Amino acid sequence: MYELTLIGIGTGNPDHVTYQGAQAIRAADLILIPRKGENKADLAGVREDIISHVTETPPKIAYFDIPKRRADDGYLRGVDEWHDAIALCWQEAIADYPDAQRVALLIWGDPSLYDSSLRIAARLDPQPRKKVIPGITALQALTASHAIPINDIGAPYIVTTGRRLRDEGWPDVASTVAVMLDGECSFQSLPMADYEIWWGAYVGMKEEILIRGPLADVAQDIIQTRALARSDHGWIMDIYLLKKRGN
Amino acid sequence: MYELTLIGIGTGNPDHVTYQGAQAIRAADLILIPRKGENKADLAGVREDIISHVTETPPKIAYFDIPKRRADDGYLRGVDEWHDAIALCWQEAIADYPDAQRVALLIWGDPSLYDSSLRIAARLDPQPRKKVIPGITALQALTASHAIPINDIGAPYIVTTGRRLRDEGWPDVASTVAVMLDGECSFQSLPMADYEIWWGAYVGMKEEILIRGPLADVAQDIIQTRALARSDHGWIMDIYLLKKRGN
Repeated sequence: MYELTLIGIGTGNPDHVTYQGAQAIRAADLILIPRKGENKADLAGVREDIISHVTETPPKIAYFDIPKRRADDGYLRGVDEWHDAIALCWQEAIADYPDAQRVALLIWGDPSLYDSSLRIAARLDPQPRKKVIPGITALQALTASHAIPINDIGAPYIVTTGRRLRDEGWPDVASTVAVMLDGECSFQSLPMADYEIWWGAYVGMKEEILIRGPLADVAQDIIQTRALARSDHGWIMDIYLLKKRGN
Repeated sequence: MYELTLIGIGTGNPDHVTYQGAQAIRAADLILIPRKGENKADLAGVREDIISHVTETPPKIAYFDIPKRRADDGYLRGVDEWHDAIALCWQEAIADYPDAQRVALLIWGDPSLYDSSLRIAARLDPQPRKKVIPGITALQALTASHAIPINDIGAPYIVTTGRRLRDEGWPDVASTVAVMLDGECSFQSLPMADYEIWWGAYVGMKEEILIRGPLADVAQDIIQTRALARSDHGWIMDIYLLKKRGN
């Protein structure tokens, strides 16, 4: 039985790695790195940089290609089959290294937050011992760069997706909403005069771009900046925090 | 004009510190450390351990006593005056070191999450340049230790306080609720048969205690374990995640 460690690496800045994460990288016999993924978090280069940032004698690396997701089957069913397929890829990559006792994956952000690796790991047969090392989330990187608190004093906040914000509108229970996984600038679906936004792309990285202000004033700027940055870099990862104005 | 860096240090495990956090500690001319606070996160020892964990030549340290909070004035007004008073303490401590260009505070968890340091820093006169370094939150440490995702696939989650959970009940918009700052095991106010709980105290530290299960089955165990641990250690910091059963 081998051990599988999911290491949260933060949002692409090698200095987001924790001492615990660095130790786990150095202790690994084998690190799996995704290639050709559909997701911008699959950038192999960022992961290689992080490994060489924390050790001069890197462990073995096994690259695997992330299979394409079928889009024609309904959202949850598509995700389910896709996770099955990725688990098979992990399994094949690991099978090439039968002596590896400590296998690790470097997870963008934190393995618990809008990430599938725990669900994929649960599909492995035989089941490895699983270990999770927490990492800096995009939400923490965003609020740090803007130097703002997430929550109002003693108040709740919600973390949701662009899809939910579009489909369900503003969740009335909170004055603060963080939006992740939004490829469509879904803040446009809100009555924009009522909100303030703190937006960031590539948060914590050298490429970081930040925009903040009344949503109605800065929405177009964000939409244009995002499109331009995406075409310049070939990928984008962004996140934002919304607050009701006048709170 | 000096620079004030708020460094997220994670939840008491020195290995939660990021490379970025360690660099900021080493670069500081002066680190402020609270003493005699009312909050368990004010433990000076944990902060001293972290400093010596990342550097053999620690910067100067200025200790300050956190003033007591007045409880008789209404919650928000009490907090407001308390933040004013803490800002004065910081200012006095910093004034003793007129040559310090880079002043730092080590913030439990992350400076943006249920933490007052940004609001206190905003009261300083003159205003320093402010910098925030993200840290591992208790929520990340909890889900890592339980090896669970926070959110269901593509679904939102809410982070709230014990007080809100007691006063307002379950927020219907989400199937997942994380509860922080709960000194009273407020999960007891819910219809317990409907929920599953993942609880942790001292998450990520050597002293870590974890309990999970159907809320109705484990609630008493959590209440007793918490009371015992609190009396053993003299302080406790805990957090939990609740999910509706059958989701």
